[in-house]
Amino acid sequence: MTHTATQAQVSTAAMFTQPASLVEAYMATFVDERALPTNLREAIRYAVLGGGKRLRPILAIRACEAVGGSAQAALAPATAIEMVHCFSLVHDDLPAMDDDDLRRGRPTLHRHTNEAMAILAGDAILALAFELIATRLEPAELVGPITTELATATNDMIVGQVLDTLGGHDPTDSPVESLRATHRHKTGALIRCAVRMGAVCGRADRAQLDSVTRYAEAIGLMFQVVDDLLDVTQTTETLGKAANKDSDQGKLTYPGLLGIEQSQEEVARLKNEAYEALEPLGAGADALRTLCDYLAVRQK
Amino acid sequence: MTHTATQAQVSTAAMFTQPASLVEAYMATFVDERALPTNLREAIRYAVLGGGKRLRPILAIRACEAVGGSAQAALAPATAIEMVHCFSLVHDDLPAMDDDDLRRGRPTLHRHTNEAMAILAGDAILALAFELIATRLEPAELVGPITTELATATNDMIVGQVLDTLGGHDPTDSPVESLRATHRHKTGALIRCAVRMGAVCGRADRAQLDSVTRYAEAIGLMFQVVDDLLDVTQTTETLGKAANKDSDQGKLTYPGLLGIEQSQEEVARLKNEAYEALEPLGAGADALRTLCDYLAVRQK
Repeated sequence: MTHTATQAQVSTAAMFTQPASLVEAYMATFVDERALPTNLREAIRYAVLGGGKRLRPILAIRACEAVGGSAQAALAPATAIEMVHCFSLVHDDLPAMDDDDLRRGRPTLHRHTNEAMAILAGDAILALAFELIATRLEPAELVGPITTELATATNDMIVGQVLDTLGGHDPTDSPVESLRATHRHKTGALIRCAVRMGAVCGRADRAQLDSVTRYAEAIGLMFQVVDDLLDVTQTTETLGKAANKDSDQGKLTYPGLLGIEQSQEEVARLKNEAYEALEPLGAGADALRTLCDYLAVRQK
Repeated sequence: MTHTATQAQVSTAAMFTQPASLVEAYMATFVDERALPTNLREAIRYAVLGGGKRLRPILAIRACEAVGGSAQAALAPATAIEMVHCFSLVHDDLPAMDDDDLRRGRPTLHRHTNEAMAILAGDAILALAFELIATRLEPAELVGPITTELATATNDMIVGQVLDTLGGHDPTDSPVESLRATHRHKTGALIRCAVRMGAVCGRADRAQLDSVTRYAEAIGLMFQVVDDLLDVTQTTETLGKAANKDSDQGKLTYPGLLGIEQSQEEVARLKNEAYEALEPLGAGADALRTLCDYLAVRQK
């Protein structure tokens, strides 16, 4: 039995709404229960509860379910990885980095508060993600493996940010290889980690973990190709952040290196790869297929 | 049998040199083995291998030994907490924070490289500390408890930095209470964590863990009172960082609130408290006593 996009029965809206609400509620409770000065708490809440697609936690939860686990079992790592993602956005937006004024249609945290608070709140969000795993994840025997996944992926993401903004590529890499290395780290690492953490919490066996990992690697790269395409085809208003930013800054992008048409073919190829990876998981992975479809055609 | 300063047989030099070398070697190996772009690796090495007292790892190792463990058993958390300390220095020195040009007698990381690299290298050093615990600490059953200690203390330290530089104190606190809250978080949390992690890795029983925790809380506060005293009594050259900075910026300090003499009495009182806490551990804790003596009289 093969699975195609048309067979995915779960609607994209339901796919997103329910896990996002669960994670936002979990995150709000965790941040509110933690002893923090009011100014820091407010800055953290602003950064982590200010909207966003919640793609990573949704992937964690759906991957957990795809291997037979419950959404509940993946909630702590799903929340932690969204916090790591939010921390990275706060620091990436800083004046010394991307110097962005707008994020998710609102002022960035350093514009809303100040630079010092944005640096410290970002640091705190990162460290709180690890505190959350260490103090909330059950069963406790998973704390080690999940912390390993999360810490490794966080560092890989930071490596991606360095490669993207400060260079440091392997000098023997071609431009396309450099671009792939950047994105495998910058976007791919957290997407892969989200899916793997979810599967581990769902008690995946080795074959299941391999399947979802291959799926994650394909959609992680696809996510970035689509992002690059959106940057050249969409407006700032639609994106909720500055458009044409990458091409304006002369950054390597897929459309820039391969052209728009070949980039779109790459999206189709990666989508196919993701589907193939999920084949052994049968209908249980339909939600992951729907997510893949959405990521291939998203408009923002 | 009581223990006084004169009974501490271990020389201060030996106390510091050997654990510091162990931790620096461990840290260098870990950073070199980790796949990283050269520019990021160099920035991380500059920040973590640029000298410093290595107080926190030394406390971790000596606390482990004080409860009957080996230095080796505490090496991973000793290294991780030094990395957390180094990360905090890199970010604290940033222009948007303390804006320091000098650290440990050398240019600060953002002066040596640039602000973006200092932000990202700081982030990486923090996340690498957790990666180190998750991937290197043995036995694996300690990963959860040690990550809990490290993550909680890191967040408490960040809270201290917020209280110190951005406010957010409980409005019902008196100035002295606010000052203590700042320092219990900013300096105290990591010192307490270092000692507790060491003791946990040395398989301390509850009573031993309580003893070293009380010791750590006393010397943590003492460390800060001494720091404030040094800020008003020492030169920039001796300190390797800007002197008179706190008083110039009108920050709350112990000498500022209590006067120099009463601050010195506070040091004596806390030293006594630390000695009392170690009483049940007997001669095994002599190294911790020597460290306490050193911290009470240090000149930089």
